[in-house]
Amino acid sequence: MGAALAIAARGRGRTAPNPSVGCVIVTGGRVVGRGWTQPGGRPHAEAMALAEAGEAARGATAYVTLEPCAHESRRGPACADLLAAAGVARVVAALRDPDPRTDGVGLARLTAAGIETACGQREIDARRSMAGFLARQRLGRPHVTLKLALSLDGGVAMGDGRSQWITGPEARAHAHLERSRHELILVGAGTLAADAPRLDVRLPGLEDRGPMRVLLSRRGDAPAGWLAIRELGAIADLPGDHLLVEGGAAAAAAFLSAGLVDRLIVYRAPILIGAARTLGDIGLTDLGQAHGRWVLEDRRTLGVDTLEVYGRA
Amino acid sequence: MGAALAIAARGRGRTAPNPSVGCVIVTGGRVVGRGWTQPGGRPHAEAMALAEAGEAARGATAYVTLEPCAHESRRGPACADLLAAAGVARVVAALRDPDPRTDGVGLARLTAAGIETACGQREIDARRSMAGFLARQRLGRPHVTLKLALSLDGGVAMGDGRSQWITGPEARAHAHLERSRHELILVGAGTLAADAPRLDVRLPGLEDRGPMRVLLSRRGDAPAGWLAIRELGAIADLPGDHLLVEGGAAAAAAFLSAGLVDRLIVYRAPILIGAARTLGDIGLTDLGQAHGRWVLEDRRTLGVDTLEVYGRA
Repeated sequence: MGAALAIAARGRGRTAPNPSVGCVIVTGGRVVGRGWTQPGGRPHAEAMALAEAGEAARGATAYVTLEPCAHESRRGPACADLLAAAGVARVVAALRDPDPRTDGVGLARLTAAGIETACGQREIDARRSMAGFLARQRLGRPHVTLKLALSLDGGVAMGDGRSQWITGPEARAHAHLERSRHELILVGAGTLAADAPRLDVRLPGLEDRGPMRVLLSRRGDAPAGWLAIRELGAIADLPGDHLLVEGGAAAAAAFLSAGLVDRLIVYRAPILIGAARTLGDIGLTDLGQAHGRWVLEDRRTLGVDTLEVYGRA
Repeated sequence: MGAALAIAARGRGRTAPNPSVGCVIVTGGRVVGRGWTQPGGRPHAEAMALAEAGEAARGATAYVTLEPCAHESRRGPACADLLAAAGVARVVAALRDPDPRTDGVGLARLTAAGIETACGQREIDARRSMAGFLARQRLGRPHVTLKLALSLDGGVAMGDGRSQWITGPEARAHAHLERSRHELILVGAGTLAADAPRLDVRLPGLEDRGPMRVLLSRRGDAPAGWLAIRELGAIADLPGDHLLVEGGAAAAAAFLSAGLVDRLIVYRAPILIGAARTLGDIGLTDLGQAHGRWVLEDRRTLGVDTLEVYGRA
């Protein structure tokens, strides 16, 4: 399942409205097929893995990060049927599919075909892996990641607004990798005016993975090639399941105030700025309210900086 | 040497003007004596370890975190002479003693007595262990640790000054442990007026290890039982080699602006405050100046909070 989760990450940000799923087919301790959701959402991971496995799928175990779908479409047959036809002996899924067309039906169809099934293995990791799809299903909007690049004392910039650079090249490269995992990237009008950010992915081989640029602006105007939203509720209509909020402090505070941040990534530089520009009002009236909202999910060292990833508690 | 460094920590904050040294005597792979500088500075670590080892010291190796002293005093004989008299075969020191009365003379006297010597083992750790003594020797002032308890966004308090509590009970207990390792603890006049902090050590068994309280105040007045300094230069005259600066943001900024912070301990809570009270101006005119000053020395998890320790680069 770990391998299936790892390859599922390849499609992240390119499969909406489908989730990015990973599938690994194993027989006799050997991997005979691997698949992940292809750009645009098809083929599904299972179809790709079965095609690679061929006859070796007979009697094998398929590990898949989401319950195999039970609905045919004009874009392809149901994966549950494909797995049954290929003669796999066992299907292990990480997560039941919340899509009402499948939700339990995929597993039931496998069981009816005499296939042993299990569900729930590494479910928490699978939820993170499919956070965009799940947010869209459950909340009707993209999953929102807020990126902050901060000094030790919480500065996003010096008092006069200068912010180049707080973090080092390793952290900035990682921030570009994060961009490549999102369909949508948003900044506020102040940041656009001050920094004219390109918001692209400047990493070798990933240059074409730049997300669609979105401007949050009361006036509703945006440069050519950008989408514009006037208010936060409009993120529900954006085309994509992963939205990265990159700046500035005002946009960050607006998303936090509205309770619209699902994941927080903090690139922290080992510097002190003093009298720094920091996060604006997020609507807190009491310190007690601040606690218990965020849980550390990952921490890694990037050069002299540290990346911390927080999820909702 | 690791064991010697560990027991050296026991005396920290209680041995000034002497350093807190640790000594472990080993023979045939067995520890036969352990000593650390006793409160007030005597007996020295070597004397205590030799007393425990007795005859077993003959032919043994003594690991000591600082070059054994070469100067007799009316409070006791020189440790180099004691080690020679006890017949140890080998002395391994972590650090040469910068005290001009010893500086190389201790090791030379051991060599002259036919004892094998080595110096420099785990020197970096020994420097940290004896930071107060070394700051006093080299800079003529105490070693200064700045403590900050911060939210993710760098808040020391809410915008209106409320700061109870940012960190949780585990972090606060650790902060009390830090207090017990300092002879001196300082706050600014604003913090005294606002919070009336007790600045004591509320940990079982360490209640008597509360540092001497120092008030930084232009007016130069202080409550009974406190010392007062009007300006930062006066820390040179304070009785003790370890000064902990606990608050508030203004005192912190003053010490940072003056380049008087040797060690930074940050207790970080996984909360966002927004529009928070943050560190004041520290005299930075360019972001470039902020970089390369601090190096992460330690990080540990305390409940849901994280402690990070930074030293000067």
